[in-house]
Amino acid sequence: FDFADDPRMKGAFVVVATQGKRDRDALRCALSSNAAYVAMIGSRRKAEKLKADLLAEGMAVDNLDALHYPAGLDIGAVTPDEIALSVLAEIVQDRHKADAGSKNVTARKTSFSTG
Amino acid sequence: FDFADDPRMKGAFVVVATQGKRDRDALRCALSSNAAYVAMIGSRRKAEKLKADLLAEGMAVDNLDALHYPAGLDIGAVTPDEIALSVLAEIVQDRHKADAGSKNVTARKTSFSTG
Repeated sequence: FDFADDPRMKGAFVVVATQGKRDRDALRCALSSNAAYVAMIGSRRKAEKLKADLLAEGMAVDNLDALHYPAGLDIGAVTPDEIALSVLAEIVQDRHKADAGSKNVTARKTSFSTG
Repeated sequence: FDFADDPRMKGAFVVVATQGKRDRDALRCALSSNAAYVAMIGSRRKAEKLKADLLAEGMAVDNLDALHYPAGLDIGAVTPDEIALSVLAEIVQDRHKADAGSKNVTARKTSFSTG
């Protein structure tokens, strides 16, 4: 996989659900891109092992820290459909936070220019 | 509306989305039933006004306290689809808590009978 320079990745929301098949390749690719959100479906333990592997490979800590794991809001999701729902809810939350952040910046700029 | 004795209400998840049309009737009915979850789509202010009205009518505080409002998890939902998603996520969370609760009860009972 190599999407690092793919323009479609800009601001994309990426959910890595490789289920043990080329997990590390997929995660490296997603975290190296300029996606807005990267989450890993799988256990906390599995994600931490993969993060450690990528750190050992030389990936920057900032990139690794951006990973959402386990994927999704903690709503006690168990079945695949509940997990999918928890991930979508996390994406909405995350997108909203990002929007709120940019609004704050705008507000600050406005008050600066009029102050 | 009168679903108080309707067997379909037992353990049901009810979302009141009346948008100003017979809000109070719908809410009274839902909260008087044995639904597992009742949420009100609308502003916090609107829901509080309706709760106060129903309290004045004589509805029990326990019934009123069961209302989820504003409906859904606080994920910053704005659009109707985001609100729907936040409500579904809250229902999964609530159902999971209820399940965990019954498991705890079972665990306690077991340890009592063997203790």
